[in-house]
Amino acid sequence: MKTNHKLHLMYDGTDFGGWQRQKNAVTVQGELERALSVITRNDISVVGVSRTDAGVHAYDYVANVFLDTDKDMYSLWAGVNALLPETIRLKSIEPCSEEFHARYDAKSKTYVYQIDNSGYCDVFTKRYMWNYRYPLDYEKMKQAAGHFVGEHDFSAFMSQGGTAKTFVREIYSNDFEILGDKLRMTITGNGFLYNMVRIIAGTLVSVGRGDIHPEDIPDIIASKERKKAGITAPPEGLILYRVTY
Amino acid sequence: MKTNHKLHLMYDGTDFGGWQRQKNAVTVQGELERALSVITRNDISVVGVSRTDAGVHAYDYVANVFLDTDKDMYSLWAGVNALLPETIRLKSIEPCSEEFHARYDAKSKTYVYQIDNSGYCDVFTKRYMWNYRYPLDYEKMKQAAGHFVGEHDFSAFMSQGGTAKTFVREIYSNDFEILGDKLRMTITGNGFLYNMVRIIAGTLVSVGRGDIHPEDIPDIIASKERKKAGITAPPEGLILYRVTY
Repeated sequence: MKTNHKLHLMYDGTDFGGWQRQKNAVTVQGELERALSVITRNDISVVGVSRTDAGVHAYDYVANVFLDTDKDMYSLWAGVNALLPETIRLKSIEPCSEEFHARYDAKSKTYVYQIDNSGYCDVFTKRYMWNYRYPLDYEKMKQAAGHFVGEHDFSAFMSQGGTAKTFVREIYSNDFEILGDKLRMTITGNGFLYNMVRIIAGTLVSVGRGDIHPEDIPDIIASKERKKAGITAPPEGLILYRVTY
Repeated sequence: MKTNHKLHLMYDGTDFGGWQRQKNAVTVQGELERALSVITRNDISVVGVSRTDAGVHAYDYVANVFLDTDKDMYSLWAGVNALLPETIRLKSIEPCSEEFHARYDAKSKTYVYQIDNSGYCDVFTKRYMWNYRYPLDYEKMKQAAGHFVGEHDFSAFMSQGGTAKTFVREIYSNDFEILGDKLRMTITGNGFLYNMVRIIAGTLVSVGRGDIHPEDIPDIIASKERKKAGITAPPEGLILYRVTY
């Protein structure tokens, strides 16, 4: 009999074509399902909390999967990790309620977007930060970050190609930390539109360069026009940090 | 005419045979001298603050070099970075006093040693932390760390093969931070014997496992016997963090 299991994963997305299984790309879901299939000798289909794009990372990704296995959890965990690439780690696996659904049950998600503003590109963080070499006004970026909090129609901060049918999302908090020449935005909300976090990060960079004023953010949101916001920041700076249920 | 220049570097040591130039290995000094030679069209010999071993990293490595060039500092900096591998970055280069010597003038050095005590091995830190999977008593490790502070003969914490002729060194501080399942030791002193930081880190792990008591550290130091200390912790956890002059 198949029973439901909750999984926590971590991955460095640099070398993957995103989360979602694809025919012609190595993806996190594809690697995970392959490992679970080998261990349980069954075809496996995993439900993930969200699609992450190619190059995007996850610090604490949640998934669920129905498994029919007589293995204990430790053996499953160790076996799956032995079969996964080193850049994907199964942090934990445990039995859970039959009703638990990793995507539908998510109450909030937290993403981190990191920028390395050093001129030389920090070797320790280059896989996990956008190396933006030009001068930025950090204080203005911090002011702008606060304007995203609240319930808004975020159509101006959405790329084409998403599956969303409604565009109102609530942002609970958007913290902007200045750590020397490193910048970290930590944004929590009840949901995010396609590329929303990366467009918000790109817009903060436009603010930092002086092309957009912090006080213009409410008007840009209200306009619902994608072209008024900044560019879509590159994927390497984005990390799915935490999901609550 | 050759004039003296001070350099700050950063490198991810994973793929290098250490700092020092070698015939049969790719080293940081070798790569840096090659880049500077191409740019200045001269044979170049760089003086580094210390030899770091294969696999050891540097967050802020200091070197000096005599150069005869009519290039401005920005062109030199950008040119050298264009020629260096991506895992070595020249943070800055500037003219300095003819007397400045990166090795002899160093007043203190700070090293960081990092341990990832997660069972699964964190994908974001695996190149820069020792993944030690077994349970450790963090509080005991923290107690033990404090016992290294002060002026001592550190012969018990030295590998064979070093060039030191005296074995007394002063440790100014040794902070031990517990960051979830990550551990970070930050040690500052007027100098370090060969492998000293890695043997101290290995000894803290013996303390964490219960094989050595924190209060035994003074006796182990006093014994001057290498075999009473713990193992030499692996290089990937070690970072040369800062040098003062």
